[in-house]
Amino acid sequence: MALVVQKYGGSSVADADAIKRVARRIVDTRNAGNDVVVTVSAMGDTTDELIDLSNAVSGAEHPREMDILLTAGERISMSLLAMAVRDLGVGAQSFTGPQAGVLTSGAYGRARIIDVTPGRLRSALDAGDVAIVAGFQGLNQDTQDIQTLGRGGSDTTAVALAAALEADVCEIYTDVDGVFSADPRIVPSARKLESITYEEMLDMAASGAKVLMPRCVEYARRFSVPIHVRSSFSGLTGTMVVEETQGDDMEDPIIAGVASDRSEAKITVIGVPDVPGSAARLFEAVATADVNIDMIVQNVSATHTGVTDISFTLPTAQVAAAKSALEADAEQIGFTELVVDDTIGKISLIGAGMRASSGVSAKFFAALRDAGINIEMISTSDIRISVVTRSELLDGAVRAVHTAFGLDSTQGEAVVYGGTGR
Amino acid sequence: MALVVQKYGGSSVADADAIKRVARRIVDTRNAGNDVVVTVSAMGDTTDELIDLSNAVSGAEHPREMDILLTAGERISMSLLAMAVRDLGVGAQSFTGPQAGVLTSGAYGRARIIDVTPGRLRSALDAGDVAIVAGFQGLNQDTQDIQTLGRGGSDTTAVALAAALEADVCEIYTDVDGVFSADPRIVPSARKLESITYEEMLDMAASGAKVLMPRCVEYARRFSVPIHVRSSFSGLTGTMVVEETQGDDMEDPIIAGVASDRSEAKITVIGVPDVPGSAARLFEAVATADVNIDMIVQNVSATHTGVTDISFTLPTAQVAAAKSALEADAEQIGFTELVVDDTIGKISLIGAGMRASSGVSAKFFAALRDAGINIEMISTSDIRISVVTRSELLDGAVRAVHTAFGLDSTQGEAVVYGGTGR
Repeated sequence: MALVVQKYGGSSVADADAIKRVARRIVDTRNAGNDVVVTVSAMGDTTDELIDLSNAVSGAEHPREMDILLTAGERISMSLLAMAVRDLGVGAQSFTGPQAGVLTSGAYGRARIIDVTPGRLRSALDAGDVAIVAGFQGLNQDTQDIQTLGRGGSDTTAVALAAALEADVCEIYTDVDGVFSADPRIVPSARKLESITYEEMLDMAASGAKVLMPRCVEYARRFSVPIHVRSSFSGLTGTMVVEETQGDDMEDPIIAGVASDRSEAKITVIGVPDVPGSAARLFEAVATADVNIDMIVQNVSATHTGVTDISFTLPTAQVAAAKSALEADAEQIGFTELVVDDTIGKISLIGAGMRASSGVSAKFFAALRDAGINIEMISTSDIRISVVTRSELLDGAVRAVHTAFGLDSTQGEAVVYGGTGR
Repeated sequence: MALVVQKYGGSSVADADAIKRVARRIVDTRNAGNDVVVTVSAMGDTTDELIDLSNAVSGAEHPREMDILLTAGERISMSLLAMAVRDLGVGAQSFTGPQAGVLTSGAYGRARIIDVTPGRLRSALDAGDVAIVAGFQGLNQDTQDIQTLGRGGSDTTAVALAAALEADVCEIYTDVDGVFSADPRIVPSARKLESITYEEMLDMAASGAKVLMPRCVEYARRFSVPIHVRSSFSGLTGTMVVEETQGDDMEDPIIAGVASDRSEAKITVIGVPDVPGSAARLFEAVATADVNIDMIVQNVSATHTGVTDISFTLPTAQVAAAKSALEADAEQIGFTELVVDDTIGKISLIGAGMRASSGVSAKFFAALRDAGINIEMISTSDIRISVVTRSELLDGAVRAVHTAFGLDSTQGEAVVYGGTGR
């Protein structure tokens, strides 16, 4: 008998019929001889409706109360799902995050899971019941208040429960068939991957693939929880996210996939004094605004001018905050101008096999050159190469690279991506 | 500095504007120098919407999950209300029933409060904050599950918190101006009472007055919590429910009010053997169906027949259950026929002053006679006389008795009754 943790997102439990379909899948898994623990998000638009309600009542920020408010959403979906499972003849009990022993720390609205004490879940399993747990929430042990986990919180809840219960697998149900070698909306011939390593999945997620959030993958890697990303609609086998992909080393693909991202902008700081400490001052200023820097490039300065330019990329939504912070510190940093460019696109090639393989960068740059794509910034890690180009050239770049590395499927077009962030 | 517990029902927090109005009233009370603890029901139709949702998902009974589901309603209203209070510059924290230390026992859907451990509420008050508590719910200590309290649960929560915190007063805000000498929809000249004793209020509530539920008054009496029933719209002083009404004994009114009730039906069991134990067998059968019996009358049997008829009244909604139970035991009880009459009306005259006053019954019956009203059943306690008559004669009976006992107001018409049961 295996222990399976399943996670269903808001679109999988959007209405009464969807809840009954999910219940059927849970019961099938239980009747196949598995112990089952389920994490569920709020139904469809519930969270947005609760946010609208709070905006109608108050224009201000009330983080503690907002978290209490939002957790009403999972309370509704989890109890309804438990009812639907029981109607199919299988015992089921629903549990809030605090009841399930999910302990958190950090700020309201984006708390971290610090521990899981799953005593009540074990008792439910021992009694032969399915345990249904509210995603996206936990109990802060210091304040004894409920907190929400922010984006990717329900996926992370599922992985944390799987780790604490030493589950055999954590199934993340979504509206796509798995992890693809590229966004199928851009590359119709993208292949569904049978498996991918945690490292690759982390780099894919950080480079724009939306199917899993980095924090959830990071948690799974730390506790070696195998994740199975699969569709709640098709029932097909999806993609396994694991420590090491299986198979003969010689035949292992070098490249897992190509990720693309249009959500970032570039800020170029012009005329920065080319002296030690300039970059430190600049990024200290940006850090005060809580901005997530991605890539950084410093121009080689012409010796006679004594100044240089520094470019960095960041989420477009954080541009205003970064600009304000830089302008407030303009005198200390000593730059002459700030140029914002929000029409960039980033393409990333990801594969653990890169480490043992030479010539990957050369092949990548050649594919871009042959497609007539100009490279503006470059950044690399041991399993990833990313370049920034013009936003309007991004799709062509992804297709060219996908083909150059032999990733195109021979089995027709893939399912289109989608999914929610909670 | 006084400690005030306030309770607001669902109609008082029906939408964002209503929530802001209630917040204003809370802040005014706080700014007048009081410590304030608030109990709140779910917004307007939220509970009904959640029940509809559960019916769409499941046709069966799932008491534990249903209680979890319904408590989402108070979670929403309490957090929004806390936000609105904070927007007015006063600190506020919302607490679920379990967080507030409301401990329960008994069945899901109609649990009883067995204790309140208000440590977190005291801390909030010590910090200068208003504490806002979800009504209608508590934590079952044995199962560590949340339970709802059933009808009147939010009022009872308020009284229980007031008792545990030794509050100076428990203000129950409703959509009427207080407790009246009769239902103002029937008697436009009904008077708002300045005060009424727990006993009188209990009998009023049990006899059809909807403004407070008996369980809440019973709790208040047990712990001597003064209740102030008042309107959330008018801001006027309402009615105090207390141990002893104040004032010179000589001038104390003998009668508090006239209550009326159309929610009951009468079952007559015909041809019951007139031997010892017949009534016991009959009402044991009814008790198995969890029926709430109100009045009972046994006819004086004609000696030569050896059989008699027994009539009793009960909530109309429980007639089917009572009939089934009686028919299942028909052989043991030995009756010949069951006659159901659901067109009865009950009028009750209530007043603690009755104890010390003679002639009240005579005056009551005379008033009914003069109004041409036939009496079908009579029941009395030391502070109440109730009679059953035809439903269509009830309003006339109430007006006649109200006038006969000098209860009519000289100040024009009263506000119309209403209100929810939660």
